[in-house]
Amino acid sequence: MPSPARQAVSTSATLNAQNQQDQKVVIGMIGLGTVGSGVFKIFRDQPEIFFQKIAVKDASKTRNIDDLDLDVLSQDPYAVVRDPETQVVVELMGGAELARELVIEALNNGKHVVTANKELIAKHGPELFDLARQKNVRILFEGAVAGGIPIIMPLKLSLGANRIQEVAGILNGTTNYILTKMTQEGWSFDQALAEAQAKGFAEADPTNDVEGFDVCYKIAVLSLIAFKQVVDPLAIYREGITRITAEDIEHARELGYVIKLIGLAKMGEDGRLDIRVHPMLIPNDHPLSNVQNEFNAIFVKGDAVGDVMFYGRGAGEMPTASAVAADILAIATGLLKGNEPIPSMIIDLATPANLLPVADTQNKYYLRLNTKDKPKVMGHLGNACGDAGVSLEAVMQKGINPDGTAAIVLLTQAVSEKQMNQALETIRQQDSTRDIGCLLRVL
Amino acid sequence: MPSPARQAVSTSATLNAQNQQDQKVVIGMIGLGTVGSGVFKIFRDQPEIFFQKIAVKDASKTRNIDDLDLDVLSQDPYAVVRDPETQVVVELMGGAELARELVIEALNNGKHVVTANKELIAKHGPELFDLARQKNVRILFEGAVAGGIPIIMPLKLSLGANRIQEVAGILNGTTNYILTKMTQEGWSFDQALAEAQAKGFAEADPTNDVEGFDVCYKIAVLSLIAFKQVVDPLAIYREGITRITAEDIEHARELGYVIKLIGLAKMGEDGRLDIRVHPMLIPNDHPLSNVQNEFNAIFVKGDAVGDVMFYGRGAGEMPTASAVAADILAIATGLLKGNEPIPSMIIDLATPANLLPVADTQNKYYLRLNTKDKPKVMGHLGNACGDAGVSLEAVMQKGINPDGTAAIVLLTQAVSEKQMNQALETIRQQDSTRDIGCLLRVL
Repeated sequence: MPSPARQAVSTSATLNAQNQQDQKVVIGMIGLGTVGSGVFKIFRDQPEIFFQKIAVKDASKTRNIDDLDLDVLSQDPYAVVRDPETQVVVELMGGAELARELVIEALNNGKHVVTANKELIAKHGPELFDLARQKNVRILFEGAVAGGIPIIMPLKLSLGANRIQEVAGILNGTTNYILTKMTQEGWSFDQALAEAQAKGFAEADPTNDVEGFDVCYKIAVLSLIAFKQVVDPLAIYREGITRITAEDIEHARELGYVIKLIGLAKMGEDGRLDIRVHPMLIPNDHPLSNVQNEFNAIFVKGDAVGDVMFYGRGAGEMPTASAVAADILAIATGLLKGNEPIPSMIIDLATPANLLPVADTQNKYYLRLNTKDKPKVMGHLGNACGDAGVSLEAVMQKGINPDGTAAIVLLTQAVSEKQMNQALETIRQQDSTRDIGCLLRVL
Repeated sequence: MPSPARQAVSTSATLNAQNQQDQKVVIGMIGLGTVGSGVFKIFRDQPEIFFQKIAVKDASKTRNIDDLDLDVLSQDPYAVVRDPETQVVVELMGGAELARELVIEALNNGKHVVTANKELIAKHGPELFDLARQKNVRILFEGAVAGGIPIIMPLKLSLGANRIQEVAGILNGTTNYILTKMTQEGWSFDQALAEAQAKGFAEADPTNDVEGFDVCYKIAVLSLIAFKQVVDPLAIYREGITRITAEDIEHARELGYVIKLIGLAKMGEDGRLDIRVHPMLIPNDHPLSNVQNEFNAIFVKGDAVGDVMFYGRGAGEMPTASAVAADILAIATGLLKGNEPIPSMIIDLATPANLLPVADTQNKYYLRLNTKDKPKVMGHLGNACGDAGVSLEAVMQKGINPDGTAAIVLLTQAVSEKQMNQALETIRQQDSTRDIGCLLRVL
């Protein structure tokens, strides 16, 4: 009886078929950080997956990896992509520009490429896909979005008979952890961020996560797969979660919602892509509402399949390594066994997206504002909304503060962002308004 | 700008590449019921997917399908699998024996096969896989489990670098609808079943669903993919949901659980497969707990990826057609474009499972019993459990009935089923016990 570890191999890719025992696939890896170490560990007991060279920033650094032969380490990533025996280059360095150069060099040298680099695929995917096609090699990138959750291949192949209508994802574990703690513990954003940093879920400089930049890359990659549309990740409308208060989360809860940072991409009937990254109120009965802590999930709506969701860990050593290793196995299986094909994840004929301006989007809105102690506050608010064509679904006044101000929460019906902005402008100028606290959209 | 329907095609499979416009893939379909009609509709606007022959039971029946050329209908399924021009046979007739004969004939005639037949794959999968390998054709079956939810390919390929430890699925929409209504509305099983039948979610004879037979086939297929183990679906330990009462659901809720019908397969360290189908208490913070109504979900635990879940509609015309159509597209793309490979879903070297007897499984248990109005009831219960080595996590007495009986609910810590049965036997014989109401396991 094979050991469990060996069973894993035979379950997945049957690399150890008897007549293949002396064969191996030669891997060159760029980066041996968290994910790279995980990938190395997964294949540690598998001689068929042979790490020939691994490029690292500092080859003299002490690494806590069993069975790592230090001779394979190199500080020259070009030595990896130019190594004549290497068949598969695994790019785990991150960043877009040097990674692009190295991947292009690898493809030009006829090597298959596996990458978990969301920024690389979001910015340069179509260029790399064209080159891979010309060179008749594969570029796989399951780890680029949502870590270990299978999403790229299911979206491209398993849902391939659908017209995808919408992709909405909780794509960043750091912000989901922060928002979960704010919801469950009543913490402020700063408290929850500090806890996330202490637990290693957030970096010392959390900007990339909490301001939504990370999610922009991921939703751009998903749009490439789901809609065959190329979106500049920097052109995506983006808001972070720093201005969400515990108060907003509590108001949302009373209205039947939770607040999540969402990467959203919807294809309109007119062919314009509504793509944006911002916090949203999620109804409690929506499957995304129950995704807690550092977990990620991607909700997809297709014209045939209806609603599907993919859930799991979106980051971390072994989850992301699971996705990268699956891509390596897919290529290795194809190389070792002539009759096992390697699925292709490249998108032919991707076209630049025609973006729907956020002002033209339709949303329900949550608005929290502070009002002064004046007569007819509610009447003024109602008039401001009504004049802009904004109908209200719920209004809550949350008591009166000692200074006479009161927090009022409005939940609107679906209106255009232009209408909402018009109402907001009127409200802002009303004498009874002290300040606008928070405006959020509803999924 | 292509219409949305055309975009779907180009998104998925790029069948309409310019130099391929005059090519087509010839399909023969067996069965034109709910799913078959959905598949036909998906490809209605796609001349590349050409339906040459469709076998039906009654060719004279009126069918509400636009663009259906009645000449393609045949009452002879052998005419489909023997048709010389047909390249792909789509088997949607259901049942195991005639379907097996027809699929074998199709494979022997060199045709690729797509099937959504869980019973066929559960009972005859390995035999069909061997034949497909010999004939160098594909057999794909994404629609056989959980309708439109991508699970077969993600489990085999995307999670291929993992040793899968556990698969737990809500795999039957009918029973999940019934249990959801019992939970949300407080209905009895009979009331909820009647509503499910009225809505078309349950058949006139609901045995196959409510007694868990349907789930046995599905968990057997999942075990084949996840563990490479062949399980006789009729040998799987099985309990249905008919004896669950609204009372049990309410008690579970008070304890922090919901009740779901679960298909479970766990690989033990000793290589024995713990596979069973029965209702379970699911903790409220488990992602399966929030799967409502007719939706399905499959929770998978892998050694690298951790917990992942796949969620969506497990049945119905278009969801299941979505999965079948994806399989057809995968084969068609491979046939039309030489450089696009067709992923293989067959399992090499599947071995008969070594089943863990249910008496040897470890579980937490929920026990509801009715006790007589006797002194020291709790003491007797505690002794019965303690003597069998069963520790209790929670005990609830739910009032005293007018006749002096009382419902008592126990929640145990994890113990072996043998220990629990021993405790149960003692409790059953105690003077203070009127009857055992319901024994359920906890996920």
